[in-house]
Amino acid sequence: MRTLQVDLGERSYPIIIGSHLLGQGDLLRPYIAGRQVAIVTNSTVAPLYLERLQQALGGYAVISIVLPDGEAFKDWQHLQLIFDGLLQARHDRRTTLIALGGGVVGDMTGFAAACYQRGVDFIQVPTTLLSQVDSSVGGKTGINHPLGKNMVGAFYQPKAVLIDAATLQTLPARELSAGLAEVIKYGLICDAPFLDWLEQNIVALRELQPAALIEAIERSCAAKARVVAADERESGLRATLNLGHTFGHAIETHMGYGKWLHGEAVAAGTLMAAQMSHRLGWLTASERDCVARLLIAAGLPVVPPAEMTAEDFLQHMAVDKKVLDGQLRLVLLKAMGEACVTADYPASLLQDVLLTDYAAIVAQL
Amino acid sequence: MRTLQVDLGERSYPIIIGSHLLGQGDLLRPYIAGRQVAIVTNSTVAPLYLERLQQALGGYAVISIVLPDGEAFKDWQHLQLIFDGLLQARHDRRTTLIALGGGVVGDMTGFAAACYQRGVDFIQVPTTLLSQVDSSVGGKTGINHPLGKNMVGAFYQPKAVLIDAATLQTLPARELSAGLAEVIKYGLICDAPFLDWLEQNIVALRELQPAALIEAIERSCAAKARVVAADERESGLRATLNLGHTFGHAIETHMGYGKWLHGEAVAAGTLMAAQMSHRLGWLTASERDCVARLLIAAGLPVVPPAEMTAEDFLQHMAVDKKVLDGQLRLVLLKAMGEACVTADYPASLLQDVLLTDYAAIVAQL
Repeated sequence: MRTLQVDLGERSYPIIIGSHLLGQGDLLRPYIAGRQVAIVTNSTVAPLYLERLQQALGGYAVISIVLPDGEAFKDWQHLQLIFDGLLQARHDRRTTLIALGGGVVGDMTGFAAACYQRGVDFIQVPTTLLSQVDSSVGGKTGINHPLGKNMVGAFYQPKAVLIDAATLQTLPARELSAGLAEVIKYGLICDAPFLDWLEQNIVALRELQPAALIEAIERSCAAKARVVAADERESGLRATLNLGHTFGHAIETHMGYGKWLHGEAVAAGTLMAAQMSHRLGWLTASERDCVARLLIAAGLPVVPPAEMTAEDFLQHMAVDKKVLDGQLRLVLLKAMGEACVTADYPASLLQDVLLTDYAAIVAQL
Repeated sequence: MRTLQVDLGERSYPIIIGSHLLGQGDLLRPYIAGRQVAIVTNSTVAPLYLERLQQALGGYAVISIVLPDGEAFKDWQHLQLIFDGLLQARHDRRTTLIALGGGVVGDMTGFAAACYQRGVDFIQVPTTLLSQVDSSVGGKTGINHPLGKNMVGAFYQPKAVLIDAATLQTLPARELSAGLAEVIKYGLICDAPFLDWLEQNIVALRELQPAALIEAIERSCAAKARVVAADERESGLRATLNLGHTFGHAIETHMGYGKWLHGEAVAAGTLMAAQMSHRLGWLTASERDCVARLLIAAGLPVVPPAEMTAEDFLQHMAVDKKVLDGQLRLVLLKAMGEACVTADYPASLLQDVLLTDYAAIVAQL
């Protein structure tokens, strides 16, 4: 078991990483202030892990709220189910919410905790690779709006994050790959040696070898914790974590939530960002190809949907949260392992990148 | 014009109080960071003051969002209208929301600002006495849930509060009285000399004499600012601001939002709290009667609805946010001008107080 610390003053909290931690209630007890606990999970995770977690929480008044599984349900109506459950069970301000599941469960539970009675405690117990290395750490919570992803939410930090890598053994291969998109992202934006490690260990990761998984999770969480500690509310550095996300969100929104997994859309978006960086002269064609090869080796799609036009991308990107006073800022790569955020690029170049034939790039690898 | 400061470190902000301030855009400019402004108001206030405020904001890209008027619409569906308006106009993270209206508009706009893109700036421009002396200051925002009032929300401070007492000239007499319930509250919980002043000036206030109104607003805001600065998130002292509110919320919830105005329910709740304090030996019968007389002089009802049983009260109060680990804490009066928060009272005494014949108390005044 390893513990990292997210350093945010009085809002600091630990990330506890290991295998088979879910049944160890003593790991959670220090972070539960009252007697009431509400476990929020979804219909896929509940049959696998809910009972084990409930049993580990002997002595508390525990309720569970089971949401339908999927990004399509990350909306107000389903958030309301959490409030309904808490109010029906008369949970008060000292209740602790526990998010048991992937990114959707974590984002919704965190936002519910931020809003319920104007703020109660919550703990993240992420069960997908994507949520373990990304969404469970850093306090971004929220729901989608028909006009944009994550448009309604809060910065709200958990009291602790408990990562049980053993839960990945039941994760569908496609979702594991989606998580690897974010793992690769950390290498690209701030940790070039980690990129080398990933190239050597991508097979072990896809084979779910525990030591490789824990190493990848720890290095990813360490990178995220550093960035979040330096810039909690995304005024600068933290925006680099969105490499590939502006393009990716456009894909997700356009295709309808849930058709492309978040990590899949990010993978395609990452290659678009790499291509833009290449066109700006920051990455060589060979480095761009390296990015594409690693994403493909992780089992990810890198070619955006054929039906999406440049106009489609531009329209969706115009409502991105990274737009400030009308300027679209993009996260790009200055070099392998070094990201920057910039609005200083010719509009025609962005147009070219949106029109690039990514299938052709992949074909020549 | 007078300016008070709410002292909350980096979240500090001014309360600017005066007459005919609404058309003075220069008062707001220092608190607007970007180019986009969204004025949120309601269908009653819009015809009276929206144009004046819009004209004062020349140079900004201003949209307005007009909600239906009333506590009955303080729900998620109507909050959604604010997000719809912001997204349709592509407002980004640097937008500033301005709440122009009463407590419902302020609470909803503040909560929308807390959640939109995980938090944008907002300014309170309260136009009712109740919102000027209470809800616009202190950062409590939120919406109602069918199972409880203000159950979903956030602590989120405005950048500034601009109070134009001249807007009270168009306020219905019933709503002015409702605001006076909160003004009287400040005297009761922490400012005995203010109680004396109120007894002498209650007629002037109901006649809307500007000097009296500004004095009452300033003393109320000063009291609230002191309490909020000492306890932003209501871990202790701030709870005293809820004198009469636990009983009052039960009345509002039971009767259906909007039938009793918030201030009216608080007035009846305040007499119940005074009676409880009397039964505990903290107030004399004459002091309790003094509370009743002042509330009545302010034009307020002090007898709870005849149809509400003690059981009704207990059931609604059990989901109050002041319940902690099953214990219902009440705000009571140790003396005139001194409040306390306590869960240390016999349950039978609460029962007696709920069953007290308040009409009889009023009859003997």
